[in-house]
Formats: sequence, C-alpha cells, structure tokens
Amino acid sequence: MPEKPSQPLVVMKFGGSSVADAERIRRVAQRIARERAAGADIVVVVSAMGDTTDELLALAAAITDDPDPRELDMLLGTGEHQSATLVSMALHALGVDAISLTGAQAGISTDGRYGKARIADIDPRRVRAEIAAGRVVIVAGFQGIARSTTPGMAAGADGATPSGAIPSETSADVAELTTLGRGGSDTTAVALAARLGADRCRIYTDVKGIYTADPRLVPDARQLPVIGYEEMLELAFQGAQVMNVRAVELGWVNGVVIEVLSSFDDAPGTLIKEDPFVEQRNKVRGLAHDRNVAKVTLVEVPDKPGVAHAVFQPLADASINVDMIVQNVGHGGATDLSFTVPKVDLAKAKRILEPVIRELGFREITLDSSVAKVSIVGAGIHNAPGYAARMFGALADAGVNIEMISTSEVRITAIVAEDDVETAVRALHDAFELATPDPVDATVGA
Amino acid sequence: MPEKPSQPLVVMKFGGSSVADAERIRRVAQRIARERAAGADIVVVVSAMGDTTDELLALAAAITDDPDPRELDMLLGTGEHQSATLVSMALHALGVDAISLTGAQAGISTDGRYGKARIADIDPRRVRAEIAAGRVVIVAGFQGIARSTTPGMAAGADGATPSGAIPSETSADVAELTTLGRGGSDTTAVALAARLGADRCRIYTDVKGIYTADPRLVPDARQLPVIGYEEMLELAFQGAQVMNVRAVELGWVNGVVIEVLSSFDDAPGTLIKEDPFVEQRNKVRGLAHDRNVAKVTLVEVPDKPGVAHAVFQPLADASINVDMIVQNVGHGGATDLSFTVPKVDLAKAKRILEPVIRELGFREITLDSSVAKVSIVGAGIHNAPGYAARMFGALADAGVNIEMISTSEVRITAIVAEDDVETAVRALHDAFELATPDPVDATVGA
Repeated sequence: MPEKPSQPLVVMKFGGSSVADAERIRRVAQRIARERAAGADIVVVVSAMGDTTDELLALAAAITDDPDPRELDMLLGTGEHQSATLVSMALHALGVDAISLTGAQAGISTDGRYGKARIADIDPRRVRAEIAAGRVVIVAGFQGIARSTTPGMAAGADGATPSGAIPSETSADVAELTTLGRGGSDTTAVALAARLGADRCRIYTDVKGIYTADPRLVPDARQLPVIGYEEMLELAFQGAQVMNVRAVELGWVNGVVIEVLSSFDDAPGTLIKEDPFVEQRNKVRGLAHDRNVAKVTLVEVPDKPGVAHAVFQPLADASINVDMIVQNVGHGGATDLSFTVPKVDLAKAKRILEPVIRELGFREITLDSSVAKVSIVGAGIHNAPGYAARMFGALADAGVNIEMISTSEVRITAIVAEDDVETAVRALHDAFELATPDPVDATVGA
Repeated sequence: MPEKPSQPLVVMKFGGSSVADAERIRRVAQRIARERAAGADIVVVVSAMGDTTDELLALAAAITDDPDPRELDMLLGTGEHQSATLVSMALHALGVDAISLTGAQAGISTDGRYGKARIADIDPRRVRAEIAAGRVVIVAGFQGIARSTTPGMAAGADGATPSGAIPSETSADVAELTTLGRGGSDTTAVALAARLGADRCRIYTDVKGIYTADPRLVPDARQLPVIGYEEMLELAFQGAQVMNVRAVELGWVNGVVIEVLSSFDDAPGTLIKEDPFVEQRNKVRGLAHDRNVAKVTLVEVPDKPGVAHAVFQPLADASINVDMIVQNVGHGGATDLSFTVPKVDLAKAKRILEPVIRELGFREITLDSSVAKVSIVGAGIHNAPGYAARMFGALADAGVNIEMISTSEVRITAIVAEDDVETAVRALHDAFELATPDPVDATVGA
C-alpha cells in the first residue's frame, strides 16, 4: 500500500468537452484552484480538447485509408499533450504551481497494443515528487508508454517483426506511445487514483451523474446518488456512455471511490463504490440501451463439434467484439446461430465469415443492422426471477417484439428493433418505478 | 567516426510549408520514395505543418499572456510529432517501410534551455537500428530531450528550483521536451547528418536555393550553385532567412555538405560547403537585409570604465541580442553610445535600460524602430578594402543615408532607414555586378 499523503489526494478527470476551448480551460483551472485552496493534493487527468481526436483521425484518413496503428497512436497522443499543457498554463495564470506530464512522464506503462493498450503498471515516483514539491500534476490521459529493446516495436505488440536480424550493435531501447482506446482517460484517472492511494477519483463530464436511464429518452429519469461497481459495470457495458467499462473494472478491483459529476455546475454527482445497501434496494437500479449493435444469423448451421470455434475464432482474431450469442435447439442435424457485433464491424464480420460459411456448408448468413440492446441492471436480479417476467411483460404491453435475450447475474438484456428503443426504455422505466427515489438513498452520504 | 553504411545515407529536411496539408505531405512522401528507390538510406526531418506552431502559440496566448516556458515547449513539440507521423503514414501508403520518431526517441538530447535549447548530444542507436531494419526514419525536428533527476526541471534549466527539499524517496528521473527555437528543424537535420555520417543533408524549402539577394526585392537576383560555410553564416546572420544560423555553424564544424533546394520542383539547389574557389571569385557573393532591427542611442554617456558593462549586462540577462555597437569618440567627458536590438525587443530594452540611465546619469535614450540592416557578404572582403568604399559610394549615389557601419572578416553592414532598404539592396546588387554569373561556378559540380 502506498503511504497516505498528509492531506487528502484527489484525482480530477476532465473530458474533451470540458476543455474544448480557452474559456473552458480557464474555468477548469478555476475549479482545480478552488479544490486546491480547500486543502487537497491534486492530480488532474485530461482528454484532448473538444473534437481534436476526431480531427486528427480525419487528417490521417486524408493521407491513407489504412494508417499504421503505431503512427496513429503517436498522432492521437498529441491531443492530450496539448490540453495538459494548456490546463497547466491556466493554473499558472491563477498563481497555482502546476506541471503537465505525458503518460510516459507520469510513469504509465502499457502492454503495448496500439489503439487498445491496457495499463500494465504505473511508476508513481515522478508524480509523487511533483506533489511533494507542492505542484498540481496534470497528466495527459488516454495513453501510456510501452518499452522494449526491439527496434520499431512496442513490447507485446502483435504486428510484424522487422524482416532480417538486427545487428546487435544497432539495437536500442524503444519506448512507444500507446493509446488506451476511446474513453481511455477515465482509465488513466482511476488507475492513477488506485496507484497513488487517492481519497477520491472525480470524473467531470457533460452530464450530472449516472441516471436511471438516458434522460434524453426518458424525461423523468432520475440521477442516482450512489451505484455499486457491478451495476455500473453492466450499465457501462450495455451502452451507458458516461463511464468507460475498463475504468469501472479498475475502480472495483482497487476499491477506488469514483464520483461522476458535471464540469459545468457544482451539484453533487453520483458515487460509484461498494454499495452496502444492495439487499435493501429496489433491485432494478437503472436501464441502459445501445444502438451500436447488429445481429448476425447463420442459418442451418451443421450441428457438429468445432463449428462455434470455426466461426468465432476468426472474428476474435480480427478484434471484433462478439456480444450476445444464441444458438437455437437443433432440429434435423442443423441449428440457427445468432450473435451480435458492433454495428461498425458488421461489414468486416461478413467479409471474414463468408469463406467460413462456404467451408462449413451453412445455408446462408443474414445480417440485421437495425436492432438495439435494451437492458435492466440491478444487483441481485439473479435472486428474483420475477424481474424477467416483469420485463418481458412490460415490453409486450408496449408492443415491442423481443428478438434475442441474454442474462447475467445483475442484468437482463433484450435485442429489439432499433425503432422500438425509445418505447422500450420508457416502458421499462415505468414498469420498474425508477422515477421514484429509493428510500435507502436518503441515508447515503457522499 | 561512425562507420559508413553500405549505401549512401541522405538526410532530407522538409519545412512547414512543404507539409502544410495532406496533399503536400503525399507529395513529400513521393519525393522520399523516389530517393529511396534510387538506392539510399534516408533520414527525414520535418517541421510542424504550415502555421501549426503559430496556432499553438495563439492558443497559449488565449490562456495566459505569460506561458510557462516548459509547458510551451511541450505544447509546441506536438506540432512536429503530428507531421512526422503523417509523413510516415503517407510513406506506408506508397509501400515504403517507415517509422516516425520524436526527438527523444531519435536520441537527441539538449542543454535544457526551454525555447532555445542547443543540441548537446545525439545517441544514434535507435535511428541506426531502424535504418538497419530497412526503414525510412522520420524525425520530429525542432526538439530534443533534457534529462535530470530533479523533478520538474530540465538539466541546465535556469528557472526557479522547487521550494523545499524533495524527499529522496520521491525523486525521479526527469525527461523534458525542449525546443530549439525558430528554424530549429534545420539544426536537427544538420546535427543528425553530422552524427550519422550522412553523405548529404538536403534542406527542402519554398525557395530554390541561396540567391545573391532576396528575389522579392531584386528581380535579377541570381541563384548561387555553391556558397562557403562562412559566407552562408554571415548571410543567415544578417537576415537571409533561408537557413538557420546554428544549422550552418554545425554544418561548418562537422563538414556536412548541405543542399538548399525547393520542395516544389526538381531543380538543383545551392550547395553549402567548403568552397575551394574562394580566392578566384568575385569577392562579394551575396547581399542580405534585415528589417527586424531597431536602433538605441544613449546620449551623452559619462566616459568612464564600467559603463558599457552596466548597459549590456542587463540586456544579456534578459536574452536581448545586441548586435551592432558603435561608440562615438568622446568629447568633454561624455560620448554617444548606439547599438541595435531586434525590433520585437525594443520595448523590453527600454524598460530594462531606464533605471540604468537614471543611475548612471545619461542625458537621454533615443529609440528608432524604422531602421534596417543591409550587408554585403563575401569571403576575403577584409583583404580588399576597396569594397567598403564601393559600397558606401553606391549607397550615396542612390541617395541612401548610412546611420551606422560595422564590419567582419567577410561582411560589411550598414544601418539605413527602413524605407531605403529596397533602393539600397538594388543599388548594391548592381554595383557588385551580382546578376552576372561567376565564371568559376561553371566548374563546380554538385
């Protein structure tokens, strides 16, 4: 365990919309300065300004339609370097001693997978030294460094090795910038909070916290004062975009208390932490939906061992994330196999599966990109089978057809037609009385 | 001496206008690919795209009017990271194996003075390893890394030290990005060429080479096929903006053959190298002018020891570059002292000198920002005093008044009214017959 600093240590993370321009950066600096003046040591994590990441992607796309993953990571990483330096300058202008650090300078090392790296370790010495010197430390989010001694390759990268042997006198230490994927700055913040033993990790965003459902779809959606890690993880995984899944996982494993709150006002947000009141609650805590889903059905699959492996291995090799998988009961030696993939990967999945289909002798492949996922999430749902019946009943009453179903310990998910998403979410919000505050929440302090 | 690679090694440097957009970056990549196909190992150095550096400066200025030099360097450095990755991607799209490196990754270490660092050393192992692996190496220009073990400070930086002692368990290795100042990418290119033992260093720019005078002012200005280091150094120092002064110095010291040429066509450029024909040439090789000059005159300075030191030390401390200094012969115990400073530093110089004036008892300080420098440059000018007379005669015939004069081994410079610059440069170009090709040049091969 790292030793506790003499005053509370708070990690504050600001997303791209919070640092979108000079004016907003100055406001973020004022918020940090207030927190500092209240007597806390502070580590700040920032995303790239506004649409910078998309603009850099567009620039790369104007050069080539197949950018090298290593070069793309180095390009994208500059966005967070820029915002980190600007927040630091804005703090200096307020008379607050501050220093910006790249992911590398902050000691964040990753497993080296470009575009989707995982944080492998954090060497906290530089950050601790800067805190000890009285500085607010601003860390560029979304990135870390991967080291190796093989030129041109990050450790663990799965790209091609350089052709030919490298003469030993020309080998060199290699440190490559790797990005953590979309939403990776949340992960940077939670990982730093865990490694530094921070008292709290605050995620400032453009919403006020975690809601029982997306307020854009459900006008009476209610902000939750607190939510457990497992429930938050399912909500994030099932489409709630406020928090990055990996960040919630890291918080859970390390017991980091995360607060999600607005960077534009001072209202209290939602705490993500171990929820001691789980057993006393209304078991459905929130709804999530996700339109970035497409359904693939392989019709009349030969019912023999090894087929599932032959289908899913090439998709996994192509980093296509297969989510729900449903195989109908076989009849006459053939079954139908359905699964979902991210909508953006549908064309790629089709290209990969077509030779497999020919080889294994399926009848056909059908694709449906006009579907969506709707989920109810709550700890202990698995102990109360009545919730499934209530969910399906509510959807039926609203005239929403269910195409696929999957469940976990704390979640029930239905695939519905994309056009039915709004109807489905509203019907479920009503059916589970989510607009009504949970009496237990009144007893939860921040 | 580094061992020679098996095929020629060429360093190619592209400035901001050469990589200003995706289309130009693709054209740069094609040029590199042609050079590569012709059988050369290639190291490329790039500046930031177009006006990126100015845009980043504007962003910093929108946050604070006094940006921290360390943060500013880290911010500006991102411009070259971006262009380096994009050039690498464009090469990949042409099927050329390539890798971009930051200054740090390329092993470039500096003395740590933010905003005006000097390259202290280059560890060439990573670059050599990438070349050995068959790659074109693209290095982000204008930057290097400074290392130390004091948190928050680059080695040799002259900023404030952190207040209070840093506990030893929180000390850390520190690597800070430092920029080399305007035109620093030229320096990166020449320094890499020297360290790698490159056969040639090509500086691609938006002009075709080095001219006898600025072609925008003198329509019959002639491109020089070759120019000696010392002459080029004086031209650059006296205002010719094609080449960075420090880069020419480095080339001279290390004997790097530099070629300045256009990135927009395929014409041969100007070679900067030891010129064996110096003694046979028309001794004036070129003219330079510089409008970024202001004149300061201290009137009736007390004629006693220590006065010059009292005046120039505080200017040096403020990093104000004092160029020409002229002190008139004293009469009655007081003299007039005139000198030039960069126009942008005039207000700062005045602020610094006012208390000095009060202390030393000058009569007054007069400032003139509407002056300019005009110089004739040629090796061996000092052996032929007739050139000074010819210069002053030509200016007098053109009706141009001379306000100050200074000379070096290879140069005579006059301060004239800014409005007279064009007249002066044209008159001198005619007087020294610079439009007429030097017969010796016909025998100079590339």
